[in-house]
Amino acid sequence: MNMLIQENRQVLIKSLPQGKLETGNFYIESVKVPVVGEGQVLVKTAAFSISAGTRAGLQGSASYAGGPSAGNVMNGSGIGQVVLSRCEAIPVGHWVKASTGWQDYSVHNGADTEIIPHGYDPVSYLGPLGINGLTAYFGLVDVGQPREGDTVLVSAAAGSVGHLAGQIAKINGAHVIGVCGSDAKRNILVSELGFDAAVNYRDDDFRQKLKIATPNGVDVYFDNTGGMILGSALFRMNIGGRIACCGVVSQYDTDRPAPSPKGIPGLLINKRVTMRGFLIYDYADRFAEGRETLHKWISSGELKSFTDRVQGLESAPGALVNLLAGGNIGTRIVDLN
Amino acid sequence: MNMLIQENRQVLIKSLPQGKLETGNFYIESVKVPVVGEGQVLVKTAAFSISAGTRAGLQGSASYAGGPSAGNVMNGSGIGQVVLSRCEAIPVGHWVKASTGWQDYSVHNGADTEIIPHGYDPVSYLGPLGINGLTAYFGLVDVGQPREGDTVLVSAAAGSVGHLAGQIAKINGAHVIGVCGSDAKRNILVSELGFDAAVNYRDDDFRQKLKIATPNGVDVYFDNTGGMILGSALFRMNIGGRIACCGVVSQYDTDRPAPSPKGIPGLLINKRVTMRGFLIYDYADRFAEGRETLHKWISSGELKSFTDRVQGLESAPGALVNLLAGGNIGTRIVDLN
Repeated sequence: MNMLIQENRQVLIKSLPQGKLETGNFYIESVKVPVVGEGQVLVKTAAFSISAGTRAGLQGSASYAGGPSAGNVMNGSGIGQVVLSRCEAIPVGHWVKASTGWQDYSVHNGADTEIIPHGYDPVSYLGPLGINGLTAYFGLVDVGQPREGDTVLVSAAAGSVGHLAGQIAKINGAHVIGVCGSDAKRNILVSELGFDAAVNYRDDDFRQKLKIATPNGVDVYFDNTGGMILGSALFRMNIGGRIACCGVVSQYDTDRPAPSPKGIPGLLINKRVTMRGFLIYDYADRFAEGRETLHKWISSGELKSFTDRVQGLESAPGALVNLLAGGNIGTRIVDLN
Repeated sequence: MNMLIQENRQVLIKSLPQGKLETGNFYIESVKVPVVGEGQVLVKTAAFSISAGTRAGLQGSASYAGGPSAGNVMNGSGIGQVVLSRCEAIPVGHWVKASTGWQDYSVHNGADTEIIPHGYDPVSYLGPLGINGLTAYFGLVDVGQPREGDTVLVSAAAGSVGHLAGQIAKINGAHVIGVCGSDAKRNILVSELGFDAAVNYRDDDFRQKLKIATPNGVDVYFDNTGGMILGSALFRMNIGGRIACCGVVSQYDTDRPAPSPKGIPGLLINKRVTMRGFLIYDYADRFAEGRETLHKWISSGELKSFTDRVQGLESAPGALVNLLAGGNIGTRIVDLN
């Protein structure tokens, strides 16, 4: 091992948040670089992504993201190069994606890393070719099942998953409406990403604007938010509509989740609506198929991927707090020094 | 027309209920028997069924049952014989099922009636071979999709649809748990209808009892109630579980529906649960298939149908009020004099 590697800076959880997450819920520490066992590799993190789902994990075991606790290194997906290998299949120098967490170095069993093929931008494995892209792809295509000409509504439409899901719906021939949290995002969705319309949920007359933006109702709702936006969308659903339940970002940054939207299950019955929750890990055996399609669309220019980059490990806590307030467009990535 | 037919007694809506339905929301009147036009038949009601869905209609246009208003004859499905026909396909004497409403006589276009074949008990068309049976069948088999060995939970399990749905789940090889509102019903479900267990939702420790009754979780929940029982069921769902949203009886007898159960859509995502609302009318082109299967099961004794009969038109309002309080077991039928 390179003797120059002296320390492993880590962002750790100081305390689980009470109410909204604050940067004070984290602290930074330097520890020794971990020991690499037989069959393992040491990865030097080049970048990791931050998503709203990261916050869900901090709600404890109630969330799908599991329950980290005080003193744990903050969890997250990252990319990096292998700097030491005791795993024959993954030589030093290879780029991999792994659950690096928020730290400079991490050790993984070879099988727990994903080798990024040569010729691919490693960062794309944190965005459109990673979990975000695959979530958008399978959530839209497999769960939402839009048909040509359907109206597809996407919430958190400027987010890491949403901005891809909306474009994938367009590629599939749908009429696509985004819901987002600022007029700047609204403009980007329409002018740069090809959404047919976008509505700012912070507007006082949001429900009225949503109605105007969906004159033919909504056939597929790709729900990243839950809460009030889901509640509003339910009233716009067409008969036989599908709701792909991807995330509940409206309820992550709190320890007192709001009540569920009104009219469940009554509205589902009246409109014969299907709501289906999914986790992308259930599609693991189809990732190759999804990635191939996504790569083709990216190469052809049909699918644009937005990243939103922040510099330095120490920026990560603030970047997550800001993301939860709606500060990002596309996938937020922390580049390490 | 037989000159002995002088009057048509009707139950009409006096006022839409504020809060709980009362018999005072109805009144009885006698009017002239309606005129029969070309292509129409006059049906003398022999019996009609009363279901919780009937109450939903009185909530106005928010319900799938549409919005009747004061002065209307109360709506409902009935069976009767054709006593006057100006429709060649349906001669006098034929038994039909039709939207008779709560009255002695009603006129229908031939196409709006359903001819009950000879050899069938006409009353079965209000129960296991009618909408109740078809709802149980398609809701369970097509929406719920139980697999051999699955645990199926049914709410309002002693009700007109529930008691059939549970038995159909058993026939399909499932382990079946019913939720009902009295210990008498609980005993009947287990000892007479073959449910593996049943839980009384009025028990203080209902959630605990539900947990004990579903040690392997719940794969399919056939939801007739919504509300607290749905909320409790959500926590028992297995990964990949299906909820067939059939009705919301817990929310019908009020003008102030309760909030939706907690954790939607979060729990749907964590457990990858599908909730699907359905209306039986969407299966109209498969009714023959459903009826054939149901008839086979009834004939073989595999499927028992419970009816709960009330005598006389004037009993109908009280029979509905009592049904909403949980007074019925099986399909409640009003026999006319």
